[in-house]
Amino acid sequence: MNRILKESLDWMDEYHQGVRYGLEGKLLIKEISPFQEIIIFESKRYGKALLLDNCWMTTEKSDRYYHEPLIHPALCGSNKIDNILIIGGGDGGSARECLRYQEVKSVDLIEIDLQVVELSKKYLTTVGGKAWSDPRLNLRIKNGIDWVKNTKNDYYDVIIIDGADPIGPSKGLYSNSFLSDCKRILKPGGILATQSESPEAFPEIHINIVKILRQIFDYADPIYGSVSLYPSGLWSWTFASMEHPTYKYPKENRVEEISKNCQIWSKRWQQGAFNTIPAFIERELTKE
Amino acid sequence: MNRILKESLDWMDEYHQGVRYGLEGKLLIKEISPFQEIIIFESKRYGKALLLDNCWMTTEKSDRYYHEPLIHPALCGSNKIDNILIIGGGDGGSARECLRYQEVKSVDLIEIDLQVVELSKKYLTTVGGKAWSDPRLNLRIKNGIDWVKNTKNDYYDVIIIDGADPIGPSKGLYSNSFLSDCKRILKPGGILATQSESPEAFPEIHINIVKILRQIFDYADPIYGSVSLYPSGLWSWTFASMEHPTYKYPKENRVEEISKNCQIWSKRWQQGAFNTIPAFIERELTKE
Repeated sequence: MNRILKESLDWMDEYHQGVRYGLEGKLLIKEISPFQEIIIFESKRYGKALLLDNCWMTTEKSDRYYHEPLIHPALCGSNKIDNILIIGGGDGGSARECLRYQEVKSVDLIEIDLQVVELSKKYLTTVGGKAWSDPRLNLRIKNGIDWVKNTKNDYYDVIIIDGADPIGPSKGLYSNSFLSDCKRILKPGGILATQSESPEAFPEIHINIVKILRQIFDYADPIYGSVSLYPSGLWSWTFASMEHPTYKYPKENRVEEISKNCQIWSKRWQQGAFNTIPAFIERELTKE
Repeated sequence: MNRILKESLDWMDEYHQGVRYGLEGKLLIKEISPFQEIIIFESKRYGKALLLDNCWMTTEKSDRYYHEPLIHPALCGSNKIDNILIIGGGDGGSARECLRYQEVKSVDLIEIDLQVVELSKKYLTTVGGKAWSDPRLNLRIKNGIDWVKNTKNDYYDVIIIDGADPIGPSKGLYSNSFLSDCKRILKPGGILATQSESPEAFPEIHINIVKILRQIFDYADPIYGSVSLYPSGLWSWTFASMEHPTYKYPKENRVEEISKNCQIWSKRWQQGAFNTIPAFIERELTKE
């Protein structure tokens, strides 16, 4: 049941450790799903925005700062990209970026919260874009951890973990057992991609995600970029693979296919982003 | 006259185009200088912070995200670094980073606003650090534009422009005439470094700074990084030189001298940061 709140809110802020980031605008929708509180907010600066449990997730006009860095190093680098799995990503942005590749035959989008999908489809129309009507998209409202557990070995070419912070419904998405299952269902030559939090606002969580992926996979490396909406604005995504760090070597035909319509990502941007590791994080990751 | 405000303010926010960034804490000092309003704010997250005309400038605990990227590409790359000029930089952070190099013989710090220096010395003690007592530092409370105009040709090895946004007292620091004067007083083999605003929050200003530097100098290239305090958090710095883009090639002996004590900057970080140009900015800069 949608409840349109009548009050006009001027500012909506996310609070984190003595810092707040706010957008001016007005509240459109506030719903409590079985999993979280969902807000749709109409901001002056970035158009309509999605918040989950009072955390900014994405907006119509800035989603590419988050989704392009998550998707393209994986999809440009993986040996094959026939069969993609996205865990989370209920706003549709990750699916949209994946479906820009003609080679992609199937995208399984496993989102736990139907209401996130419904509200995103209705209000954040540019974020999912044409993905929602693309016949290659298989949307399943399921628990992603169970989905991965029940998938057979060597099934997906690419796995995208597009969850929120590791609390609430996304808690299990950074655990050893879940990520080991991901490795099991990933084809040889495939790539796993995950958002991996802020090295500034959540340095321990960030470092732990990279370390656990390095334990499970042969290769795992973070890239760094900017997502203004997220705590500190400095964000990271981490890619993992077996045998070769294929995520570092984008295939030219795919680069050509997608570059023209990218706002942030380019082959050059990606090469840079694998190196802009803050010195204090690099020291932590190379310690022992 | 310092006026200690007694009220306890919970949050101090900077507002920009429908976005606000705030820190929790309390106001310590609010002064009106002949040039601007100066605030010292005690924040829970980052210690004491400086605001000029309601814009966050720096904090005790996060200043390195801004100062290391501004200083080290210039000081590691320049042929010689005997004689440095800093325009602005009244908080002392740029001088502190410059004076870490033993080779540096003299740093002229030309700040227009004595009150910024005095309050920074008193409250932001870790930002200026030992720079204030270093005999190599020559602090002059002067107009930087006049200083540059009155300096003889080929005088400085490195020029650092460490001003605020191009409004208020920093307005002239991005003009053709000022930057042409900078080129005139820069020695052959020297490097000019300037902060160059956010490609997200101020794309036109950012692009114009890079373009004007490319007109005046033989080479000019931006790097991109994160300064949580500044609008959007995505920030840039631009370096310019004649004959060779020396700022791209840090000298090994200097890298070794400073790397250990850097929090953000490393040779690797810098190489990356010259490439993490957002695709839409790269297209704008390579247009004609």
